[in-house]
Amino acid sequence: MKLCGEIEVRDREETLINLDPIQSGGRLTAEAMKAVIAYGDGYSVCDACGKPFRLDTIKKPPLDAFHRDLAAFVHMDVARVMPGARRGFQAVTHTLVSPGQPVILTALSHYTAFLAVESAGGVPREIPMDGNHRITGEEAAKTLEAVTRESGSPPPLLMVDHFDYQYGNEHQVREIAKAAGQYDVPVLYNGAYSVGILPVDGEALGVDFVVGSGHKSMAAPAPSGMLATTSEYAGKIFRTTGIRGDRTNRTFGVKEVEMMGCTLMGATVMGMMASFPHVRERVNRWQEELENARLVARALSSISGTAILSEVPRRHTLTRADTLGSFDVVARTHKKKGFFLTSALKERGIGGLFPGATRVWKYNTYGLTRRQAEHVAASFREIAKENGIAVM
Amino acid sequence: MKLCGEIEVRDREETLINLDPIQSGGRLTAEAMKAVIAYGDGYSVCDACGKPFRLDTIKKPPLDAFHRDLAAFVHMDVARVMPGARRGFQAVTHTLVSPGQPVILTALSHYTAFLAVESAGGVPREIPMDGNHRITGEEAAKTLEAVTRESGSPPPLLMVDHFDYQYGNEHQVREIAKAAGQYDVPVLYNGAYSVGILPVDGEALGVDFVVGSGHKSMAAPAPSGMLATTSEYAGKIFRTTGIRGDRTNRTFGVKEVEMMGCTLMGATVMGMMASFPHVRERVNRWQEELENARLVARALSSISGTAILSEVPRRHTLTRADTLGSFDVVARTHKKKGFFLTSALKERGIGGLFPGATRVWKYNTYGLTRRQAEHVAASFREIAKENGIAVM
Repeated sequence: MKLCGEIEVRDREETLINLDPIQSGGRLTAEAMKAVIAYGDGYSVCDACGKPFRLDTIKKPPLDAFHRDLAAFVHMDVARVMPGARRGFQAVTHTLVSPGQPVILTALSHYTAFLAVESAGGVPREIPMDGNHRITGEEAAKTLEAVTRESGSPPPLLMVDHFDYQYGNEHQVREIAKAAGQYDVPVLYNGAYSVGILPVDGEALGVDFVVGSGHKSMAAPAPSGMLATTSEYAGKIFRTTGIRGDRTNRTFGVKEVEMMGCTLMGATVMGMMASFPHVRERVNRWQEELENARLVARALSSISGTAILSEVPRRHTLTRADTLGSFDVVARTHKKKGFFLTSALKERGIGGLFPGATRVWKYNTYGLTRRQAEHVAASFREIAKENGIAVM
Repeated sequence: MKLCGEIEVRDREETLINLDPIQSGGRLTAEAMKAVIAYGDGYSVCDACGKPFRLDTIKKPPLDAFHRDLAAFVHMDVARVMPGARRGFQAVTHTLVSPGQPVILTALSHYTAFLAVESAGGVPREIPMDGNHRITGEEAAKTLEAVTRESGSPPPLLMVDHFDYQYGNEHQVREIAKAAGQYDVPVLYNGAYSVGILPVDGEALGVDFVVGSGHKSMAAPAPSGMLATTSEYAGKIFRTTGIRGDRTNRTFGVKEVEMMGCTLMGATVMGMMASFPHVRERVNRWQEELENARLVARALSSISGTAILSEVPRRHTLTRADTLGSFDVVARTHKKKGFFLTSALKERGIGGLFPGATRVWKYNTYGLTRRQAEHVAASFREIAKENGIAVM
């Protein structure tokens, strides 16, 4: 069905159980859907904007309170909404990193963290992962030591994902932050896969910046996200403009340079805010989410020739599977080739996997009910059996 | 009525004729409203994302074609969607401007252009306006000459608004671009108040970058916008990542550094795309819009003690009025003070002016029907008469 012109109606979430690795945490709540309708118009939140004319000071709708809520949600002092987590990374690298300086990332850092370093002219230095695809405090300390020795001074920033995009593995943020603290290196916590789906306490982790993604994990429209920091760094990262027109002598009030002034003036921030009460609540159900994730991972592991490449038992709902010895063997002779798997899943009302993938692929069980998770688990086993693969 | 929690339903566009200076061009079309509902979920446009995994290459929904349409729309070679016009400015300043370099703006440049210069470490040099609040090619040439002489080389960038945010006056973009061409200085055309509401031909104007705002003038949700450029500059501004992980040797494909990878992955780009056929058509009705703008400006001018500070006859629907000698005189003794004007307008179904403003204020007639414009014009005259102000 066409929505208008060449645009099809999107019904993936209505018609299928969606296992897409990046979409589940960004599904809108019913409240967010209502908000994007009511506040869809461009500058919709500016109706009652008054002095000092900045998004985070608007009282109606209550964006000022929402900004305070966001900071409290991740146990930091100050927060701003951003056009995506990546723009949060960029604000931090552009403030702290000078061209040519090393920036510590990890062997599992997301490409947007690399781009943020690149755009600031920084030089990436990765903390290697261990044999279980985990970033440890110990390896972080080694990298910090090596980089500091080489440069003659500690690097200006370390960026670490709580859970990475490749394996959904949990990394030792607290230990890494502790190591960084010994060199006085500020730590950016990338919570794209955590803020909004599980409890995050930036203070307890000892990090200086907490970045979250609205469209990835906070049930909000894209592009949206948040950047929170401590009182210590707020003045730097959220510094207000100091530029002046040389002929007019104009200055520009309290606009924040790295925010480029106001960031999300309508549907995005309103969707994020409308979802927030639900999001704040749902992080407390993380244990149930993990049970579903483990249930599906166990089912896949029970299929001969299949391996879960992510850490087990799962500590996140995003999971990397290796089916080279199972579904991929079938694909080699199946008339539908690799598409047999996505096709068989679709017949069972399951979608969102990369079409044709039967080798190494990712899925995410976030947001499934127990019954849906059981259906997914049973479906993988059934499809294996139907195609002659041994199932334990 | 509450939408949910503390969020009120927004009904400004449903209940009032909205004269807000910045909102009218960003009102969603019906098609955009449908699109933000169907594509509201975070990463909704990524359902069929395949190699090379970049927003502007997605075929379903047809974002690839939309990107080509956007470039053609402003007569440039290559376009990208952006999280707001300001992020388009930023991409250009960060590519072309080194810290300490002068950047030419104008005495009427928007604050976001200044922030883009500030965030790149540039030094602003304003082209002064003439006595009619217009930026001319002649003054641009003088500023170019002065800056080039002082620095020993031409500046890396000149940024000019086609219509400015203060007066909605038209500036001599073609002549300014011609002057810049003589120094080989690239020109960024800020079309926040033009792209999407009137015909824009970047090639004919001789500019190197055309920036538009989705939420200000393209009937799209915030934050959205576009950056278009020539084949000559596309490789620079849209350069792909060259960074590499030092331990993993990872590289990051065709992701574009200044875009920070993908920019608008859901509701925003879909709203923009769904509105686009309407937007492409409506720019051809600019003359009718100007007639409405002139009709209202004439009505205000007919009120004794009132001056239109923008150029007349109006060449834009955004207009700056001075009512110090009319409505502000009333405000001094009225029991509602300055709010008498917004209150009297509201009784007549008109809203969107800055509450309490009776001195110097802005309004925008964009999108009004002729009948609505006539009603607005008659209302201003009536309110003046009712309060004892002479009306011609």
